[in-house]
Amino acid sequence: MDDQRFGLARKVTLPGLLRLDGGGTLSGVEIAYETHGQLAPDGGNAILICHALTMDQHVGSVHPRTGKPGWWAAMVGPGKPIDTDTHCVICSNVIGSCMGSTGPGSIDPSTGQPYAMTFPVITIRDMVRAQAMLLDHLGIATLKAVVGGSMGGMQALSWPATFPERVRSVVVIASTARHTAQNIAFHEVGRQAVMADPKWRGGDYYRHDDPPAAGLAVARMAAHITYLSEAGLTEKFGRKLQARQAKGFGFDADFQVESYLRHQGLSFVDRFDANSYLYITRAMDYFDLAEEHGGLLANAFRQSAARFCLVSFDTDWLYPTIESRHIVHALNAAGRAASFVELSSPYGHDAFLLDAPEMNRVVEGFLRGGA
Amino acid sequence: MDDQRFGLARKVTLPGLLRLDGGGTLSGVEIAYETHGQLAPDGGNAILICHALTMDQHVGSVHPRTGKPGWWAAMVGPGKPIDTDTHCVICSNVIGSCMGSTGPGSIDPSTGQPYAMTFPVITIRDMVRAQAMLLDHLGIATLKAVVGGSMGGMQALSWPATFPERVRSVVVIASTARHTAQNIAFHEVGRQAVMADPKWRGGDYYRHDDPPAAGLAVARMAAHITYLSEAGLTEKFGRKLQARQAKGFGFDADFQVESYLRHQGLSFVDRFDANSYLYITRAMDYFDLAEEHGGLLANAFRQSAARFCLVSFDTDWLYPTIESRHIVHALNAAGRAASFVELSSPYGHDAFLLDAPEMNRVVEGFLRGGA
Repeated sequence: MDDQRFGLARKVTLPGLLRLDGGGTLSGVEIAYETHGQLAPDGGNAILICHALTMDQHVGSVHPRTGKPGWWAAMVGPGKPIDTDTHCVICSNVIGSCMGSTGPGSIDPSTGQPYAMTFPVITIRDMVRAQAMLLDHLGIATLKAVVGGSMGGMQALSWPATFPERVRSVVVIASTARHTAQNIAFHEVGRQAVMADPKWRGGDYYRHDDPPAAGLAVARMAAHITYLSEAGLTEKFGRKLQARQAKGFGFDADFQVESYLRHQGLSFVDRFDANSYLYITRAMDYFDLAEEHGGLLANAFRQSAARFCLVSFDTDWLYPTIESRHIVHALNAAGRAASFVELSSPYGHDAFLLDAPEMNRVVEGFLRGGA
Repeated sequence: MDDQRFGLARKVTLPGLLRLDGGGTLSGVEIAYETHGQLAPDGGNAILICHALTMDQHVGSVHPRTGKPGWWAAMVGPGKPIDTDTHCVICSNVIGSCMGSTGPGSIDPSTGQPYAMTFPVITIRDMVRAQAMLLDHLGIATLKAVVGGSMGGMQALSWPATFPERVRSVVVIASTARHTAQNIAFHEVGRQAVMADPKWRGGDYYRHDDPPAAGLAVARMAAHITYLSEAGLTEKFGRKLQARQAKGFGFDADFQVESYLRHQGLSFVDRFDANSYLYITRAMDYFDLAEEHGGLLANAFRQSAARFCLVSFDTDWLYPTIESRHIVHALNAAGRAASFVELSSPYGHDAFLLDAPEMNRVVEGFLRGGA
């Protein structure tokens, strides 16, 4: 493909202003993205994939910092459930993040300094508006599908509500139409952990090359527990001790689950910006699709003719199946076509990121049904 | 009562050595405790109440730092379910804590300095051994009952396993016979939050009068979420905003659940020592009563002739009902008399601390049955 807009490691500066739910605007917004597969001449085979809180545009390409495969390489690629032999897949880094799209670590053109905490608080809908501007840039009027898990599912739900004409089908996996008090509480713990770290310096840590890693690691550890099921943790770790085989009667990591969690915290800070963590968790906590539509979730879907596919996992206690059911009820009330399946998995919320043959079949079948 | 050993605000220095599961010993161990009611001439009406992680000996008396009523004032007192008109109730601060019993904040007699992290890692059984030495001091050979919720329930379970001759009945509320991987994980997040705070200074913060309050507050916030049910949080807070009625598009506490959690964290650091939090959570994580008895929980109960009463709450996801069922199965296998009830409550794990008429009736009836 000669069109330089398509391919891996692409970046665009959006023309004009991005209008934000908080009342302000952002100008010169950069969006980092990648595409896989060829856009059909009629543009009808475009699929937008929306990423979760700490993920990025590398849905199907090696992550430049970790060297790991794309976060959904089992789902996206030639011959995969989201088949890039027949589709053009687009995945962009959300605004507020730290993998190339404009976020709190970006330079504020008006000051020449990083935004830090002067970056505006953004919403899930703001992320979606930026994605729509990216599609304008790519010349894609209408998506065959928007697909996302977790926070990606929130964006996927927001798409038909915000741009009802621009999306023909919606896949929402392990997600919710609003953050509950418990969801907010866990995020608030994480934010407080970051902000309690003296190295956070009110968000102005960029010039010091010494970010609030300890606080961000604690935030990640707390969040990580919510991504796994109690049964999955028990199956994987139980009360198994580290290799030295006996309790140390100290505060080193005695139990395998402790060293696993510490590793999760430490490896996260190498790839993620603390302020981005604050802003994106805030966007998720603010998310309440019903509230944006007069308090009735069904209203969010009345303007759209899209088909919907909802998937939940039985051991996901972060966004349990009941949250997907709420969405399905609202879709039914709005007269939308909706298929819904609860899959069985021991892996809790994180199941959607793993190679799950049943999930793959559901997504593949749903996309084929819309052909 | 003229006997100065009995009453409120009592303290004793235990004679001799306290032998610890970790292999070491502690000498000159101080135990802060209180008693309510008169000990019968035959000593047969003594009830030991064991407290939870952040509680203390003030089961039925005003807390000296917070000015709040005793933490179980609804359960313990004249005419209450644990009736101090007819019983002598003893409640002591566990070793490792910070309300008067020897813990990491106490002076190490061998150095004249606070123990800090040179304090030995202790276990639930060590706490129970110290309680037995307190009973020796009080001249109480055998308890009519040992009663505890949460970590207090762990001690209550450990009593008949450690001193089978010294306890005639056991009440275990909202507790477990072992910490799961998820329980350990949440505690590890809390410990990492404390130790990530630069003011922790490797535990040597006592001389600076500037404790690691921020880290401890984050630890408390994370733990507090596990004490409440998702449904309870939703009922109490839902997505309700603070008084200003609209989202602030900033990082102040917008949602009521956020300010509630922040308050929980901040008020906790005024009354609790960070190192004590490390040591007591460690003791709970190490707790596995089966492991102490050849890997078979029933073995823990074979030497005892005590009657058991187990109570769980249906919305407690920290120590869910299944954990109580495990204990009851082991008691049955050991041929012990055990009654068990799961109570319905919207309040999650914390239900045992609240005035719960059904719980009160169960405890009162069980204690009367043993008269």
